[in-house]
Amino acid sequence: MSSLDEAGVIDVVARGELPRPGVLLGIGDDAAVVQPPPGKLMVLATDTLNEGVHFPVGIASCDLGHRAVAVNLSDLAAMGATPAWALLSLSMPAADAEWVTGFVEGAQRLAKRHDVAIVGGDTVRGPLSVCMHVVGFVEPERFLARGNASPGDAVFVTGHPGDASAGLSLLQSGDSGNRLTDRFLRPQPRTDVGCALGGVASAAIDISDGLVTDLRRMAAASGARFVIELRDLPLSDALVDLRGADAALQHALAGGDDYELCFTVDPGREALLGGLAADWDCGITRIGHVEAGEGLVLLKDGEPMQVTSLQEWQHFPKAHS
Amino acid sequence: MSSLDEAGVIDVVARGELPRPGVLLGIGDDAAVVQPPPGKLMVLATDTLNEGVHFPVGIASCDLGHRAVAVNLSDLAAMGATPAWALLSLSMPAADAEWVTGFVEGAQRLAKRHDVAIVGGDTVRGPLSVCMHVVGFVEPERFLARGNASPGDAVFVTGHPGDASAGLSLLQSGDSGNRLTDRFLRPQPRTDVGCALGGVASAAIDISDGLVTDLRRMAAASGARFVIELRDLPLSDALVDLRGADAALQHALAGGDDYELCFTVDPGREALLGGLAADWDCGITRIGHVEAGEGLVLLKDGEPMQVTSLQEWQHFPKAHS
Repeated sequence: MSSLDEAGVIDVVARGELPRPGVLLGIGDDAAVVQPPPGKLMVLATDTLNEGVHFPVGIASCDLGHRAVAVNLSDLAAMGATPAWALLSLSMPAADAEWVTGFVEGAQRLAKRHDVAIVGGDTVRGPLSVCMHVVGFVEPERFLARGNASPGDAVFVTGHPGDASAGLSLLQSGDSGNRLTDRFLRPQPRTDVGCALGGVASAAIDISDGLVTDLRRMAAASGARFVIELRDLPLSDALVDLRGADAALQHALAGGDDYELCFTVDPGREALLGGLAADWDCGITRIGHVEAGEGLVLLKDGEPMQVTSLQEWQHFPKAHS
Repeated sequence: MSSLDEAGVIDVVARGELPRPGVLLGIGDDAAVVQPPPGKLMVLATDTLNEGVHFPVGIASCDLGHRAVAVNLSDLAAMGATPAWALLSLSMPAADAEWVTGFVEGAQRLAKRHDVAIVGGDTVRGPLSVCMHVVGFVEPERFLARGNASPGDAVFVTGHPGDASAGLSLLQSGDSGNRLTDRFLRPQPRTDVGCALGGVASAAIDISDGLVTDLRRMAAASGARFVIELRDLPLSDALVDLRGADAALQHALAGGDDYELCFTVDPGREALLGGLAADWDCGITRIGHVEAGEGLVLLKDGEPMQVTSLQEWQHFPKAHS
């Protein structure tokens, strides 16, 4: 295993650089210079992943590279934005050439799939941590916020919440290489869904912090009450088979690490949504509705369920060590 | 001392938010939505500061907040860009309310002075680290790169290189509260200089990694040789008085942490530069010239000096512990 200096790390990142129209100056100067598309709004997001907090110690570097890109693109998807450029700040105790190469491959593979150019960044010595910054664009009338849900709207979620956190628990007990661990290790940002939802959905959020936490945030930001029918949650067969129905529900509601989108749609637009959804492999499921009021109500067989007992995702108390 | 949860930290940052035209959605959603000015290029930079590597353990939180903004704005200044927006990712072992408030005050004070809005970010648990991303704008014909210097150009530097690293060494030996320590703790990004240099300078870089390292980078990127007259380096009286002339030179050449700009100017534009420089408090000094060839030559009393003995700033080997 050979060790890289700062310039060596930058070289590895730069070798994978995607030639992309609009990039006047990419990796290698004090900053990147890019040409924004005319007439669009810019959407800016950042997410940091710390070892032992946001990913387990010992994760493969290609999985970490994938994850850094995925979690950031997920934020843009929640805004309805098309991603364009990314900056990557990588903090490492030492720069092992093989590790860095794997990391960059994982990051670039997912970035390229979404036509994102990594145009710059920073390489520093320190505890293992990745901070990524992404820039996307959206037409002015199509951006999505979490605070625009209205009473009467239907609530939808993409994919199968809970799979990722069950996958993490499998990894922590030494298991690997199945559908659930893959859902934790290789989250797929819902870029296509988010971009298509602009002008269709009334509000959206990504549920990386767990469905309950993020639904509460949508409810608070929208000044409305979210009512969720637990029997409608799209639990995957793999999750229910592994954990049983009750624990599967707990994973889906409070597990976190699902980079799925939760969004609301005015009933008048549900038909339009249905037409779009036919193209989405991840699937969407109606899980509830919005009404006047505040907070989150979870209905179990029609009866409100106490949610205070759920272990919610909080960046400070919880760890992936 | 009270402790904050993630929402509490976000509240502290959001309270200091600057209302700024063009910010459609600031702190509090999955991403920020902003309106870029028409007809300009976008400049993107990121810099991470890790405790014990980029700043000493125990630094006051307001100084750290200032530093995070300063080092990022310095990158934009080196590109000739006017800063607009910033995203702040803050990693902390625990969120003490007083510490966070001080950090945000330090960051917002400098950001506001440069008309920069902190529009979003991320708060995570982990080792103390700040990752900032900044977005600026520049007219297409005015952006500066490090690789456009030509033989015949004059080489200039702003301010007094070496002061910051001497200030750091004073802090490490328990000293504080003088001009040199202030130069380390409160670097001033040369935003006005950088913006004015667009269309005047041929190339520019910020010398945060030390003059020798960054001059070599300019030379390599420009495919030319940089020749520097050591007697022309603008050593401050405070630095020479403290360290003597030889050690002062070492600080100026290889100390690092100076957020000054080094830039090159075609001789035909030196008169124009002189007119602009009258407005710059930091001052500028001509320290050498560019010629055909490669690499960096340091002249001491007209004789080339060996530079291999200089301790250069490298992120991996060196630490501020």
